[in-house]
Amino acid sequence: MKSGLNFLVAAKRCEIAELQQLALTSALVNVSGRLVHGLQRERGLSNLYLGSQGTRFAKARAQQIDECRQIEAELRACFDKLDTESDRVGHGARLFSRIAYVLHGLDALPALRQQIDALRWTARQATDAYVRLIAGLLAVVFEAADSACDPEVSRLLVALFNFMQGKEFAGQERAVGSALFASGHATAGEQQRLLHLIESQERCLQVFAEFSNAQVGALWAQSQDRATLAELERMRRILGTAADGAALDAGQSQVWFNCCSQRIDCMKVVEDQLAHDLLRVCEEKITAASRDLQAYQALDATTTREADALSFFRDAATPASAPGAATPGFGVPAQGYGLQLERSILELVQEQARRLQTMGDELDTVRASLNERKLIDRAKGLLMQRQALSEQAAYDKLRKTAMDKGLKLVEVAQLMLDAADLL
Amino acid sequence: MKSGLNFLVAAKRCEIAELQQLALTSALVNVSGRLVHGLQRERGLSNLYLGSQGTRFAKARAQQIDECRQIEAELRACFDKLDTESDRVGHGARLFSRIAYVLHGLDALPALRQQIDALRWTARQATDAYVRLIAGLLAVVFEAADSACDPEVSRLLVALFNFMQGKEFAGQERAVGSALFASGHATAGEQQRLLHLIESQERCLQVFAEFSNAQVGALWAQSQDRATLAELERMRRILGTAADGAALDAGQSQVWFNCCSQRIDCMKVVEDQLAHDLLRVCEEKITAASRDLQAYQALDATTTREADALSFFRDAATPASAPGAATPGFGVPAQGYGLQLERSILELVQEQARRLQTMGDELDTVRASLNERKLIDRAKGLLMQRQALSEQAAYDKLRKTAMDKGLKLVEVAQLMLDAADLL
Repeated sequence: MKSGLNFLVAAKRCEIAELQQLALTSALVNVSGRLVHGLQRERGLSNLYLGSQGTRFAKARAQQIDECRQIEAELRACFDKLDTESDRVGHGARLFSRIAYVLHGLDALPALRQQIDALRWTARQATDAYVRLIAGLLAVVFEAADSACDPEVSRLLVALFNFMQGKEFAGQERAVGSALFASGHATAGEQQRLLHLIESQERCLQVFAEFSNAQVGALWAQSQDRATLAELERMRRILGTAADGAALDAGQSQVWFNCCSQRIDCMKVVEDQLAHDLLRVCEEKITAASRDLQAYQALDATTTREADALSFFRDAATPASAPGAATPGFGVPAQGYGLQLERSILELVQEQARRLQTMGDELDTVRASLNERKLIDRAKGLLMQRQALSEQAAYDKLRKTAMDKGLKLVEVAQLMLDAADLL
Repeated sequence: MKSGLNFLVAAKRCEIAELQQLALTSALVNVSGRLVHGLQRERGLSNLYLGSQGTRFAKARAQQIDECRQIEAELRACFDKLDTESDRVGHGARLFSRIAYVLHGLDALPALRQQIDALRWTARQATDAYVRLIAGLLAVVFEAADSACDPEVSRLLVALFNFMQGKEFAGQERAVGSALFASGHATAGEQQRLLHLIESQERCLQVFAEFSNAQVGALWAQSQDRATLAELERMRRILGTAADGAALDAGQSQVWFNCCSQRIDCMKVVEDQLAHDLLRVCEEKITAASRDLQAYQALDATTTREADALSFFRDAATPASAPGAATPGFGVPAQGYGLQLERSILELVQEQARRLQTMGDELDTVRASLNERKLIDRAKGLLMQRQALSEQAAYDKLRKTAMDKGLKLVEVAQLMLDAADLL
């Protein structure tokens, strides 16, 4: 018959399996991040190419496409290595569905490139197509962040996901600005879009700052070149304030592209550091958990069996405990035992219960940021559907309501969803 | 190289594995529920026995202990059947830790019974000891509810968990009331405890009503005998309003016990129905998912490959989509495709993405009720630690603050935790 110790060992093995899966996922996140980076650059160059009616940037674009093809092959190899045979429980269904989606996008990529080659698609259409594929790749990272059961790992994944998402908004800004400059004149719609992208970017970077550790935060602060930032802000001002239809200097498109690219390349360095930290944290935790596992396995259930079986109930029998202690999963871990010098299995069981409880509490806090994101998105979707608004118009409406009422965006989203449930 | 279809198949297999694990867990939940029921009765009889100084109820108690021993053996056999060898990811670590805890409690049970036999423990001490063991068993059910990824299953598990928890508070009420009557006089402390248990019970039953389906709700409404309810309320009034130290009719202890037991036995019927529904829902979902899986496997990736690869990007290229579409995981599912008559793999991928999205949204709603519970408990824990309060005093303080401020309990808990984070 299986003893408490058997289950303690099994619990520890599950923890290790979970961490190992996360380590594998971070490798996947790393390659996905590189492909995102490459596609962001390809998107920018495609915009320059389309904006110049195919007269410029053809060579740089072709080189970038070659680079992307190589990373794509790496990513596909990574997908191939994933264990899809053993039925893994948990978030496997969601992760694999995301990957299926990405693979279909990658299959369609050559046809997209042909449309751009032949100037059959507008810059806006091409941008939207790349945005969609990159969103699919980022969804893989989001899924990993949402499924991690270790709070420290989850915290790093939330920081990484938001940083990558912020970088993607920066990449979209580069593409939209490139197309605007290259076309030679301002259009109000694209200018509005640019402002929206800058704001979204800053929102993501704030969440990143909140969840990343001090070292990565410092790396990001240091890596931003003041001169490049000033130049970027100057060009943002030109793009943002030009009257609808006013002329823009087409020669500036390359300058804008380089300026944005310099910043985005810095972001890639920070992203790599985050991905590296993630893998390191996973490995450290695997080592620690394996050490615990060995210690558990070395215990002999028969010799360490409680001399005093009643110790399980001991502090239950003190007057301090109250009926509320019946709240399961929370009241369960007992107070520390100071009476026995030898570590008993019961102590280990209780220590483990306490540890899992603390981890669960921390995890709830980290997950809250992911849930806020989901709430805002559901409220946005509701507005789009009920009032036939575009995604941007729906977001603007939410934001305006929040500002008018002095509430947080997530609070407005929650109010709106509650109201919809009632109606 | 693996295709999108391969990952679609893998995702479906994960879904099935998850459902199968849930079906196994519901079997575990069922036996745990029966042991909880038996131990609740053993606790009540032990209270009657201790309250009468061992002069009465010895035989009924001995019979009940025999019955509990049999169910315990069944539960241990159930634990033995759990697959602890293959490293299952997800909530395995938490579930197994809970089981390790329960096994230690069961190992200590014979020693507890000896203490009661010899009248060495007070009724209060004995009650607290049983409360602790039952809390451990209920924690296994809570863990299952918290880890289910299917919203319908999760909804049923939340209903079941809250019903079982409500039943446990009813069981504690029976035990405390039995001891009070049997002792022959009222004590203010135990009377206060009784009121707290009645209130906690009603709170749990409200959540149950919110999450259970109409049929089970009706079963619960019908199964409550009006005459028994009236009798229970009459005896509750006597217990609740007697002055501290006033005499109680010891002869009423058996009447109280029977009246409470009748209600608790009705609850067991409802609980069994919920457990039965849970298993049926799991099985239906496994059947449906297996049918999907077969359909996917019958598809041939080469013949069904998109004639028009660009359809992946098609609606991305319509002006309706906006930069916000880059929000990954949410903007990803595309609008329906009406143009192709044949179902393509891409459509399947997108359908699956939409389905998982809807399921995720529903799941968030269901989980919110579990999270409220966690929040309240964390706030309670904080008060206990910082102000050295008992669990009940901490809960009373939270409740009083909520009433004074006209807020929900969970809102007060959240405010308190936010404030603690800031300080």
